[in-house]
Amino acid sequence: MQPWRTAIVNKDETHIWLRGYDIADLMRRAGFVDTVFLLHRNRLPSDAERRLLDAILVASADHGAGAPSCAAARLAASGNRGSLSAAIAAGILAIGDEHGGAGEACMQLIAQSASDARQSGKSIEDAANLAVKRAREAGSRLPGLGHRVHTTDPRVAVLFGLASEVGVAGDGVAFMQALEAAAARSIKPLPINIDGALAGVLHDLEFPPAAGKLLFIVGRVAGLTAEVAEEHAREKAMRIRIPVEYDGEPPRSMDSK
Amino acid sequence: MQPWRTAIVNKDETHIWLRGYDIADLMRRAGFVDTVFLLHRNRLPSDAERRLLDAILVASADHGAGAPSCAAARLAASGNRGSLSAAIAAGILAIGDEHGGAGEACMQLIAQSASDARQSGKSIEDAANLAVKRAREAGSRLPGLGHRVHTTDPRVAVLFGLASEVGVAGDGVAFMQALEAAAARSIKPLPINIDGALAGVLHDLEFPPAAGKLLFIVGRVAGLTAEVAEEHAREKAMRIRIPVEYDGEPPRSMDSK
Amino acid sequence: MQPWRTAIVNKDETHIWLRGYDIADLMRRAGFVDTVFLLHRNRLPSDAERRLLDAILVASADHGAGAPSCAAARLAASGNRGSLSAAIAAGILAIGDEHGGAGEACMQLIAQSASDARQSGKSIEDAANLAVKRAREAGSRLPGLGHRVHTTDPRVAVLFGLASEVGVAGDGVAFMQALEAAAARSIKPLPINIDGALAGVLHDLEFPPAAGKLLFIVGRVAGLTAEVAEEHAREKAMRIRIPVEYDGEPPRSMDSK
Amino acid sequence: MQPWRTAIVNKDETHIWLRGYDIADLMRRAGFVDTVFLLHRNRLPSDAERRLLDAILVASADHGAGAPSCAAARLAASGNRGSLSAAIAAGILAIGDEHGGAGEACMQLIAQSASDARQSGKSIEDAANLAVKRAREAGSRLPGLGHRVHTTDPRVAVLFGLASEVGVAGDGVAFMQALEAAAARSIKPLPINIDGALAGVLHDLEFPPAAGKLLFIVGRVAGLTAEVAEEHAREKAMRIRIPVEYDGEPPRSMDSK
Repeated sequence: MQPWRTAIVNKDETHIWLRGYDIADLMRRAGFVDTVFLLHRNRLPSDAERRLLDAILVASADHGAGAPSCAAARLAASGNRGSLSAAIAAGILAIGDEHGGAGEACMQLIAQSASDARQSGKSIEDAANLAVKRAREAGSRLPGLGHRVHTTDPRVAVLFGLASEVGVAGDGVAFMQALEAAAARSIKPLPINIDGALAGVLHDLEFPPAAGKLLFIVGRVAGLTAEVAEEHAREKAMRIRIPVEYDGEPPRSMDSK
Repeated sequence: MQPWRTAIVNKDETHIWLRGYDIADLMRRAGFVDTVFLLHRNRLPSDAERRLLDAILVASADHGAGAPSCAAARLAASGNRGSLSAAIAAGILAIGDEHGGAGEACMQLIAQSASDARQSGKSIEDAANLAVKRAREAGSRLPGLGHRVHTTDPRVAVLFGLASEVGVAGDGVAFMQALEAAAARSIKPLPINIDGALAGVLHDLEFPPAAGKLLFIVGRVAGLTAEVAEEHAREKAMRIRIPVEYDGEPPRSMDSK
Repeated sequence: MQPWRTAIVNKDETHIWLRGYDIADLMRRAGFVDTVFLLHRNRLPSDAERRLLDAILVASADHGAGAPSCAAARLAASGNRGSLSAAIAAGILAIGDEHGGAGEACMQLIAQSASDARQSGKSIEDAANLAVKRAREAGSRLPGLGHRVHTTDPRVAVLFGLASEVGVAGDGVAFMQALEAAAARSIKPLPINIDGALAGVLHDLEFPPAAGKLLFIVGRVAGLTAEVAEEHAREKAMRIRIPVEYDGEPPRSMDSK
Repeated sequence: MQPWRTAIVNKDETHIWLRGYDIADLMRRAGFVDTVFLLHRNRLPSDAERRLLDAILVASADHGAGAPSCAAARLAASGNRGSLSAAIAAGILAIGDEHGGAGEACMQLIAQSASDARQSGKSIEDAANLAVKRAREAGSRLPGLGHRVHTTDPRVAVLFGLASEVGVAGDGVAFMQALEAAAARSIKPLPINIDGALAGVLHDLEFPPAAGKLLFIVGRVAGLTAEVAEEHAREKAMRIRIPVEYDGEPPRSMDSK
């Protein structure tokens, strides 16, 4: 068997290097947010980048026990108390394009729209109008807009505000704000959601589209671990009961198949 | 790297052998239930063993969308439509000692009790009485008894009846029936549940305790795959809403921490 | 909370019905393969359908500890002995479009090609030639062809032979055979693999494309449970060592970032 | 259905509170490490607590692609490119008592030993000697000691050094150092490993034993996400081949079963 190649971790009997940096230095002189950035980008972040990534991870940390990720984690914890990692994993498995993962599609839309605008000499607003027009014609949803709970998601303004303050805000933030405005004009009020906010900011931080989902997971695991710890500490096993309404075949006999 | 040892599958360019049997023969002249038995026991089953294992897998296949395993699978499917295997895996992760997995502890109780009875020349009934007495004194639950839904779980009588018919029923079935009777006398009516029924029958089939959980999983995956397929076919993404009641800290300020 | 709708399982205090059939009847008078068919198709199979589905599940059961699904299951079992379901779930998570899941794309290709051929009055052979031509022009891989290990996968001939014997073979089997022949003529010998064989047969059994992946999972869990049981029974924890070759940044200092 | 209770997250149309703190404040005026502490402890950390938790998360972030968690994640990514969350979850499922999870048992040993020492008026050194003596007599392993790779794990000295600097080091750190010394005297040199270091420091930070596993997972997900992103970016699907040596039954015939 060929050894697996890796560019991330090297180690010997007394040292561990993460992407070339001694882990002892990272522990003493940097922190976890720096390390997340380093592992994904192969360099340490600037102060502005660290500040924004830190806020992104806080924004993703938890949104309540009813979100599919937390609910799946609690259900697994309810039936399978023996394994903490099983419950956390079940929670992560509920994260996909529909929950916590629209950032990926949204980052692709931003990248394409910003590139088209630049090439054709159009404005970001024109690009956002075009994206809304196309979604309406195709009858498809706009990634990054709309929320089941919030009319205004408080995390969006903080992220975009921070991005401006630290000088990182660019096409990503501008496009998402223009997209929200264009959708409000020609469809209905659809507030930017957390996926859309992450997408805008991560685009401006020059992360690749997959980072929308991956960094959301890094943040959300903070909440999942706490939700599972609470389920173990406060609740009985098998306490969760989901009401189910059967609407299938009435009783039938094998003799008449 | 040393190659991994395995005693299960061998193959070359044109053949695959499962525990020594040509997979082409297994496909043509045997079936899936034989193969499950073969993979776990290193030999093909007798007709009686196959008959009983077949019924065990049917009994485990599904118990409705509200069971933790199915509910976790549907939640994962609801948030993450892109991956069928993620949803199935989330369902399996809810299977543990509390759901679908008590069979393991129950098989250990049967094995210990049957061995003690044999050595001390006592009856299986005495062993069951002793197990109930100990559980009462310790304030612990008896594995394999009690059910949230059923006053009589219909799968139990069928499994135990089949085990008798095909001549497999032994200490395992006898102990579980004696345990149910003893618990009814000195605690309250606690019907044998599916975990307890599997434990009794699998003990008599000479499976090891871990098989209680593993074979339940083999059967339940039939239901999980169908539940996930139905969730995709009939329901919208993110349709599942869990009501949550917050009972934690009221709003507080960071200034006064 | 609205109850969840389901058409699969109904139950009360003393009965369980799977898609309308009393589970006691299914256990006594039918078997696991019937139940898998029933759960996915809402009716019991004919003898021919049961025969073929049985062989499909055997064919999917195991392909050795080196396949990604089994290897991931054994790695999880090696680091986390406490949870059997965690190891099985890890194995399932390695099943996707590249491993055990190409059947889905292949079934879509078959359905589209067969429909096109019917509408344009062309033969299945013409449709297969066209599919090969398009794949060559697009530089894309043909789903269902090619294998890392086998020059002839023994499972294919058995499945296709059985499909003919029991009178189920139709467009699906014919298309896959024509596709293999066309690829051999204009690309290189690319044997039908297990995904392609399942796709052909499941098309002829009128299963939807997602069934390619879901039924593979049902079968493979038989092998995963046995591989994990063997890992626990024969091997020490943490025995698996993967050699890794680091090819990233050399040691660097945080002072010079 | 009864709503699920939770004390972690509350929200309305325009606000989200995590354990009573406005998420907007946490994003602006605190950071991810504070939020992890808050979610698990229901209060914000002191500067010393934050500093130490930050280093704990860095120490857990990654240890190379050969560790079971990363290897399982890469295997899942290799076979199932379609789902990032499936690969991350597979990695988490390899975390258990043997990998990344011994901290839990180690924290229980520390708590018990420290409590016994206090009650009997003995020193922490005496308690450590007793623990080593008992492990030798029982033939059991000491949790938190010994490593496959490192003769001295560099993360240990940094964590213990930081704990002293910020004034957090107490019984936990002292016990682990005494345990290492006692084991070296009466067994062999067994360096404190990362599980043992986390256990010592988390005991002194007054986290419950389960936190040993849960916080390791929070940190490790940083590495898992980067390893999976690298696998997608640099490697072909199905590139990973594990050599397997078959040592089971030779070919045998179904006729002679």
